[in-house]
Amino acid sequence: MARSKAYVSSVGVTKIGDLWDKSIIDLAVEAARGAMKGTPRVKPDQIIVGNMFSSMGASQEHLGALLASALGMSGTPAYKVEAACSSGGSAFNVAYNLVRSEAIDSALVVGVEKMRDLEPEEVSQALAMAESAEYTQFVGATFAALNGLLARYYMEQMNVSRDELSSIPVIDHANAVTAPHAQFRKAITPEVVSRSQMIADPLRLFDCAPVGDGAAAVMLVNEKSAAGSKNRMAEVLGGKISTNEFSLYEREDMLDFKASKEAFKAALAQAGLSPKKLSLVELHDAFSVVGALSLEAMGFSKRGQGSKDAKSGKYGRGSELPINTFGGLKARGHPVGATGVYQIAEAYLQLTDQAGQNQVDGAKFAATQNIGGVDSTSAVHIFGRAA
Amino acid sequence: MARSKAYVSSVGVTKIGDLWDKSIIDLAVEAARGAMKGTPRVKPDQIIVGNMFSSMGASQEHLGALLASALGMSGTPAYKVEAACSSGGSAFNVAYNLVRSEAIDSALVVGVEKMRDLEPEEVSQALAMAESAEYTQFVGATFAALNGLLARYYMEQMNVSRDELSSIPVIDHANAVTAPHAQFRKAITPEVVSRSQMIADPLRLFDCAPVGDGAAAVMLVNEKSAAGSKNRMAEVLGGKISTNEFSLYEREDMLDFKASKEAFKAALAQAGLSPKKLSLVELHDAFSVVGALSLEAMGFSKRGQGSKDAKSGKYGRGSELPINTFGGLKARGHPVGATGVYQIAEAYLQLTDQAGQNQVDGAKFAATQNIGGVDSTSAVHIFGRAA
Repeated sequence: MARSKAYVSSVGVTKIGDLWDKSIIDLAVEAARGAMKGTPRVKPDQIIVGNMFSSMGASQEHLGALLASALGMSGTPAYKVEAACSSGGSAFNVAYNLVRSEAIDSALVVGVEKMRDLEPEEVSQALAMAESAEYTQFVGATFAALNGLLARYYMEQMNVSRDELSSIPVIDHANAVTAPHAQFRKAITPEVVSRSQMIADPLRLFDCAPVGDGAAAVMLVNEKSAAGSKNRMAEVLGGKISTNEFSLYEREDMLDFKASKEAFKAALAQAGLSPKKLSLVELHDAFSVVGALSLEAMGFSKRGQGSKDAKSGKYGRGSELPINTFGGLKARGHPVGATGVYQIAEAYLQLTDQAGQNQVDGAKFAATQNIGGVDSTSAVHIFGRAA
Repeated sequence: MARSKAYVSSVGVTKIGDLWDKSIIDLAVEAARGAMKGTPRVKPDQIIVGNMFSSMGASQEHLGALLASALGMSGTPAYKVEAACSSGGSAFNVAYNLVRSEAIDSALVVGVEKMRDLEPEEVSQALAMAESAEYTQFVGATFAALNGLLARYYMEQMNVSRDELSSIPVIDHANAVTAPHAQFRKAITPEVVSRSQMIADPLRLFDCAPVGDGAAAVMLVNEKSAAGSKNRMAEVLGGKISTNEFSLYEREDMLDFKASKEAFKAALAQAGLSPKKLSLVELHDAFSVVGALSLEAMGFSKRGQGSKDAKSGKYGRGSELPINTFGGLKARGHPVGATGVYQIAEAYLQLTDQAGQNQVDGAKFAATQNIGGVDSTSAVHIFGRAA
């Protein structure tokens, strides 16, 4: 029941990487200040932080009030929204629903994650919390292992080759070369993927999103707050969170990403848009197989064809539907709770012609899809060029 | 900008305690089913979980989708809201703003915390995450220590005696005797408090909320969803989250709980209510000193008089303004992220004459005040008898 239009009016991102010299709150402040600088006349009504595991990554909870205070904005209502790897997208969805229904006029949404202060084993433990402690973690399945099982099943059921599976990471790395905030800015080939270290058979190093620190922020405003702004804006046309049966083993069909399917369908319906109108999609490809299944869930590729279509050129730069235009989770990076907000910031940059060398010419509409767990949660948003 | 009235239509709570045989999700499901049973015709549009440290308490994040799936409600949008000890009140505030602005028609809000699977030192670490890692935790201040410093300062500045400080815990324990879901159902005297173990000078064991497991849930519905319901309901008349300078040392006046003051003021204004109309207040007294300062921040007691007023009988059972009618944080218990939802469930029980032996006769209006950190965040809500 939309009362007001909602716009992303400015964004801020940190480069993703091994940011040893910055604390979690340093990162959040850097991104937040970047976003607020672009919309100087608006003091946000709420600060909503997307984050998954600051408790493990930084011995810190209560990021909402901590960030408000660090920004000199104490008083402002502030809290964190968590939905595992879809924390960023979910935080934005809460803000979007509050703004479009006129509960509030504006919000600052900040996604942040500090991963690199942890040992690799601790990162593995932290990520595993996206899955069921009692039925998955405690029997020894890491998050990568679950995705490995899914990839094996996908490849065998759908007759997907090693090189086909590599195709989405290849697109990601190609796009990241010219993306200033990306973690890994080197192009790769399918051979590089095939020869990389085995992580969870059949997934290799280059099938898996890297571990990095980062923060992204967006200012979300309604029509009233946007009035008179000289800043370039992107309109939020629709958005939805959906959930799936929590664990893979509970699902009738593991290859059916129902949460992403339903969230995408609902967000598009809200936007009143045909999927064919989309100029680009920022995809949640935490693992190459997840990227492929996401493309299938949203209907861009037929069942079993996600990776194959990517290999045949459907989703690359200059194609009809470019994906992950700044490198996606694989190459831009995946600071877990921040990722969904990075995607939205990237969609904004594209729709306001601020994407530099990564610009998709004439981009009119963009979708962002942010998954928690293995599609246990999915937050999808649709954006358009502001009229 | 309220479009619709919002009602709490039913609640569910677990008894608080050492629930070794129940997992975090077992507890959340138990409370959620209790709440949903009371409003059988409504399938909530969203599930919002209030929780602070399931990562440490239960090696689990992603509680939203996990709970939705465990309830057989996958598909439903679900996520967690965290604001340290005010996670429950903050989760409810998000739901309230979404319902009253008609972004959604209904929500299931579930507060849950699992504390007793941790060693005492780990509980201390978990609670410390409510405060700044860099400037407080890492120099060795536990959460109890910070409250101890505050209590010493309060007692000396305001000339508060040991027995006066004990007065709020004494009220709490008296009220909990007849509260079925309370953790500690034994009356105490000021002497019991004075003789109890020193925790953080001057705070003793009975000045401090206990450690326990528990979950509470409420169904929140708009007018449309409420139509035709035979269930007794409480109307949400106002609600606000506010924040303060994050850490005590940053504040001009440590005895001024600005977040609670502002949140209470705003919530009352929204409700269009004079504070004198309130029949009861559910107070956030994680430590006796915090209870006293909360009474002062909301203006029920003058500066320095919170504990003194409690001692002189102002807030006890049968007084003009009973507080913590089921035992408050000290005796009902304080499963951190669940506490704010327990308070709201208790306000509901009072306003619908379902409080049993704890009933405040003719209760018409109630306030709940839920703090995160040492008043770094405060979420206040005002409730009234449904017309």
